[in-house]
Amino acid sequence: MHGAGHILEVFYLLLAAQLMAYLFRRLGQPVVIGEVLAGILVGPALLGWVHEGEILEFLAELGAIFLLFMVGLETRLRDILAVGKEAFLVAVLGVAFPFVGGYLFGLQIGFQTLPSLFLGTALVATSVGITARVLQELGVLSRPYARIILGAAVIDDVLGLIVLAVVNGVAKTGAVEFGAILQLILLSLAFVGVAVALAPLFARLPLDRLPVGSPVGFALAFGVGMAALAATIGLAPIVGAFLGGMLLAELREKYKLEEPIFAIEGFLAPIFFAMVGVRLELAALVQPATLVAGAVVSVIAILGKVLGGFLGALTQGYRAATVVGVGMAPRGEVGLIVAALGLAAGAVNEEEYAIVLFMVVATTLFAPLALKPLIAWAERARRVGGD
Amino acid sequence: MHGAGHILEVFYLLLAAQLMAYLFRRLGQPVVIGEVLAGILVGPALLGWVHEGEILEFLAELGAIFLLFMVGLETRLRDILAVGKEAFLVAVLGVAFPFVGGYLFGLQIGFQTLPSLFLGTALVATSVGITARVLQELGVLSRPYARIILGAAVIDDVLGLIVLAVVNGVAKTGAVEFGAILQLILLSLAFVGVAVALAPLFARLPLDRLPVGSPVGFALAFGVGMAALAATIGLAPIVGAFLGGMLLAELREKYKLEEPIFAIEGFLAPIFFAMVGVRLELAALVQPATLVAGAVVSVIAILGKVLGGFLGALTQGYRAATVVGVGMAPRGEVGLIVAALGLAAGAVNEEEYAIVLFMVVATTLFAPLALKPLIAWAERARRVGGD
Repeated sequence: MHGAGHILEVFYLLLAAQLMAYLFRRLGQPVVIGEVLAGILVGPALLGWVHEGEILEFLAELGAIFLLFMVGLETRLRDILAVGKEAFLVAVLGVAFPFVGGYLFGLQIGFQTLPSLFLGTALVATSVGITARVLQELGVLSRPYARIILGAAVIDDVLGLIVLAVVNGVAKTGAVEFGAILQLILLSLAFVGVAVALAPLFARLPLDRLPVGSPVGFALAFGVGMAALAATIGLAPIVGAFLGGMLLAELREKYKLEEPIFAIEGFLAPIFFAMVGVRLELAALVQPATLVAGAVVSVIAILGKVLGGFLGALTQGYRAATVVGVGMAPRGEVGLIVAALGLAAGAVNEEEYAIVLFMVVATTLFAPLALKPLIAWAERARRVGGD
Repeated sequence: MHGAGHILEVFYLLLAAQLMAYLFRRLGQPVVIGEVLAGILVGPALLGWVHEGEILEFLAELGAIFLLFMVGLETRLRDILAVGKEAFLVAVLGVAFPFVGGYLFGLQIGFQTLPSLFLGTALVATSVGITARVLQELGVLSRPYARIILGAAVIDDVLGLIVLAVVNGVAKTGAVEFGAILQLILLSLAFVGVAVALAPLFARLPLDRLPVGSPVGFALAFGVGMAALAATIGLAPIVGAFLGGMLLAELREKYKLEEPIFAIEGFLAPIFFAMVGVRLELAALVQPATLVAGAVVSVIAILGKVLGGFLGALTQGYRAATVVGVGMAPRGEVGLIVAALGLAAGAVNEEEYAIVLFMVVATTLFAPLALKPLIAWAERARRVGGD
């Protein structure tokens, strides 16, 4: 009569994530990896209790939105602007290196120009969710390297959007559609620019005198609204949520916004990470040819971002710069969307899609595993005052 | 690229609910009515910004689950058992009166036997969410009348399930399917019985020593799991969530479960109530014939529950007994599911479906409007010690 279907799937995801979180904390490893593995466990790759589907994907997306909204709430705009030059460099280099690397590797293994361009494009966009969670878990969100990563992630998303528009235009019409791309650039810059410009106004917004049910209720609607606005432009919803959180950061303590939003994140973010695991179809990856190419592409994807981060953030010392690079390494749904667009345009085949999927999973699992010891290493330098 | 669609819809729902919550608090009316009207405002009946759909329906269902989970957390089993006799009587009478009333009215206006049976069945099941929210809002969840309502809602759901199984069996095979119904009764009783029997064990569960990420994380998974289990049997998910909350009620303070779960409810429950409004298609209701029949059926639906509540809970004094009856009056999705099953079985036509829809909306709006003054009246008697 009522149908347990999706409620049961949410239960499996929550339970598996809880058990794996316990296990990974015991092992001294990032909890977020346990959550991804929980998804692999209950997903189609192993137990088959949970499947991909619109409803769970949307819950997962809300989880990512609340995660970055929360991270935004803990981030003051002026702290991001203070490392603005580094963030910009990290984003530009971290887009350029993987794009060129992926493109050249594609040509090297015999792809045509267009599939090679798509491969490069799929390596461009950082998915900052998993890094944000690790930074939050380790309590280092206020460090300069964390702020560089967050600032760079916003710029990276704008750049990724532009690269995709160029490559997609070439695939569809054989030419670069300058008008559409200019519009995209202007809209993205306007969105980020208006948010930055309005920050001082928001910092003094009397939330308790707005015609709303409660300050927290306003904050929730605002965060979701900013995510929707970003998505309308074509940016990642999490970028909008992050900017929205940042606009309310100065009001966080006064109106006690933190605990309720942290609680909602605590419910939904594990669903986001577990769904990363659910999406993984192990079967698609075990072809030997795909495995080797996937491993090489993953290395290119990681090295490209590490090099970009390292060179871009060297002002912070080489340890912090390495953390920045590794923090930028995870790729996510944007990479998969690029590959799917390539598939739809006939520019990419199933095998290349599997390579990108492999790269997404590999970079997502690599980053938190590497970040934990690297951050400890960077923090040690910080404490003894060395580098 | 990302698609703002549903994120934008959630934003509209949250924003409209916040604005209407403000307005209704100002007017001294229950906030929950404002949330329903917010859904009518942004839904297809008026602005058309939000539409029914799987994803929003699921978010709404999660909202109802967290609402009743939270109410369960604030309810100790022994307090429900203390009013068990009243709750049982209220449930039985409150099922019998509307069923007979709806059936006789159907015959009266010229329906055949089967459509009349479906009409009666659609009036049976109380949807306790809106009442629970009003009780929570007014801070009277610990009163005996509140406990009678909550206990009666659980029994009411089991009885409603049985009535539906009988009528649905008659519609499909022309006979009462005793085997299937016996199975249903046994499963329902086993579910509720096991929950009650395990309560003392749960009260001493060391949540901090379970192999889970956190006590709150365990509680979230447990509440969703109980909802899924109830739905698997055929009961309402909110009944499972309520029982799950009640099992953890003794642990609420020790493990600080209340605030995080209240925060999640605060995000999702307004979506549940707003979706009640979104589902309302004003167009279907404005046929004069439907309007009159809908109004009469709504009166039967309300009087049936009020009479059942009044007679069943008279031990508490006539004021509290009236509150119980009105608190049981709201009908919800179960009524609509009954009508939809009747439609699918060819036993009910579109006009009768519209009548049931009208009744659902009317009882949902009537109950909170009436409850607020009635509870004030009952509380006055309580304070002066009279009746």
